[in-house]
Amino acid sequence: MTPSRLEIVVDFADCDPARIVFYPRYFDWFDRATERMFRERGLPWPEMYPQYKMAGVPLVDASAKLMGPARFGDAITFETWVGEWRNKVFIVEHRVHNKGRIIVEGQEVRVWGLRDPHDPEGMRAGVIPPEIIARFKD
Amino acid sequence: MTPSRLEIVVDFADCDPARIVFYPRYFDWFDRATERMFRERGLPWPEMYPQYKMAGVPLVDASAKLMGPARFGDAITFETWVGEWRNKVFIVEHRVHNKGRIIVEGQEVRVWGLRDPHDPEGMRAGVIPPEIIARFKD
Amino acid sequence: MTPSRLEIVVDFADCDPARIVFYPRYFDWFDRATERMFRERGLPWPEMYPQYKMAGVPLVDASAKLMGPARFGDAITFETWVGEWRNKVFIVEHRVHNKGRIIVEGQEVRVWGLRDPHDPEGMRAGVIPPEIIARFKD
Amino acid sequence: MTPSRLEIVVDFADCDPARIVFYPRYFDWFDRATERMFRERGLPWPEMYPQYKMAGVPLVDASAKLMGPARFGDAITFETWVGEWRNKVFIVEHRVHNKGRIIVEGQEVRVWGLRDPHDPEGMRAGVIPPEIIARFKD
Repeated sequence: MTPSRLEIVVDFADCDPARIVFYPRYFDWFDRATERMFRERGLPWPEMYPQYKMAGVPLVDASAKLMGPARFGDAITFETWVGEWRNKVFIVEHRVHNKGRIIVEGQEVRVWGLRDPHDPEGMRAGVIPPEIIARFKD
Repeated sequence: MTPSRLEIVVDFADCDPARIVFYPRYFDWFDRATERMFRERGLPWPEMYPQYKMAGVPLVDASAKLMGPARFGDAITFETWVGEWRNKVFIVEHRVHNKGRIIVEGQEVRVWGLRDPHDPEGMRAGVIPPEIIARFKD
Repeated sequence: MTPSRLEIVVDFADCDPARIVFYPRYFDWFDRATERMFRERGLPWPEMYPQYKMAGVPLVDASAKLMGPARFGDAITFETWVGEWRNKVFIVEHRVHNKGRIIVEGQEVRVWGLRDPHDPEGMRAGVIPPEIIARFKD
Repeated sequence: MTPSRLEIVVDFADCDPARIVFYPRYFDWFDRATERMFRERGLPWPEMYPQYKMAGVPLVDASAKLMGPARFGDAITFETWVGEWRNKVFIVEHRVHNKGRIIVEGQEVRVWGLRDPHDPEGMRAGVIPPEIIARFKD
């Protein structure tokens, strides 16, 4: 599939006293990039979640390899795509570019999280509908 | 070594619309738990950094395995320790407990980051001083 | 009433490139300090909200006067109390101390936010029950 | 002056368990909107700060009037302008629109913060150069 792209200018608000991006923010951006990818595929979460009786797409695994810094003022680009669809789980891949270099590679393993009809606070994994996967073909 | 412990009550501020901890927050807590571990070993970062001419202990790799949720109001405990000291790199391990279960296991690979004397914005990896490692013996 | 107290050590994670607390964080801490005050009065939000059919205590006004900085490593203390109870609204006052000085004074005007039975996403202001106000007497 | 505009889609990452924007985030956005306004006027902070020997533009006062919610998925717009330039202080005004309504009005009182040559951690208020103010004329 064609990756989704998210362009970000690193704000003062994103940086720590070492004047680089505070690393947990990459995971915050991964979450936003994933949401944006669904939106671009015609599946905005605020509509998709109630339609498919979902509570969310919670993580079972998240990781990032940080190969270079992003500094205050840098314009960075996230490329985001689904690397693999399994039965109830999908893997989101992220690649972050800064000035022509790849600075971060990230991976999120996410569950198709249905609301639990017996517990309003609960969630259970569901089978990912084929029409969802079809939206990510090209 | 004896793990450092950080006890947290999951606040409204930590949760997302699925009413569980927003996952990037675990990495924010990993950073705080690592800082706290150094503080408990007599190495508060605001003093250690200038003393050792450091800019920080930046990450080259971060990962988390999320095995169960933490919900609004849950009292969770982080256990944090250094799993391995290498020449210029050290690995911090995190284990998060909720109601007697392990819900998250995390790992941070961090560099001993010296200020670059030729570039006030730069950083370079340095050899970890043996007296630092000695503080984490017991 | 006796103020609730929240003690915080300013972490690396709380600071910006100017090496002081990134100011929006004070409002994050105000929210946590308010939640803690309710918890200390026997009204933890995760229990109080369903019991009183509430969605939350949303803000209509928030402000902070910032009189001095808090730096990386500073131990600061939040004092938090309810300054006024009105019919459907209450005012939370915050005072932050650092090394014997008051560095921040904040105010939050909050609504008693009931779930709207006709709209699962909605919220409407309700009259604050007298037994809630009674918990904050001493 | 013509306001600067910042368009945001409210992500899952911005919302709390009440499914509306977690209110401290408005102040985070105010900071980003202010930085963006300077960037649009040819004054990106990463360049302006070293050029004018500044540590930042720290706040002495921040406030927000919250008149309506922004929900998960809403497209909101920030309008941001300088309401007043004083000798060493300037006032930034923010107005947030959602579906044709003003939902938030905010104000930040900011200081022109010079580095203190006698204290690398310190900051002192400086007179705002007239060429800075001139950039915000139209």
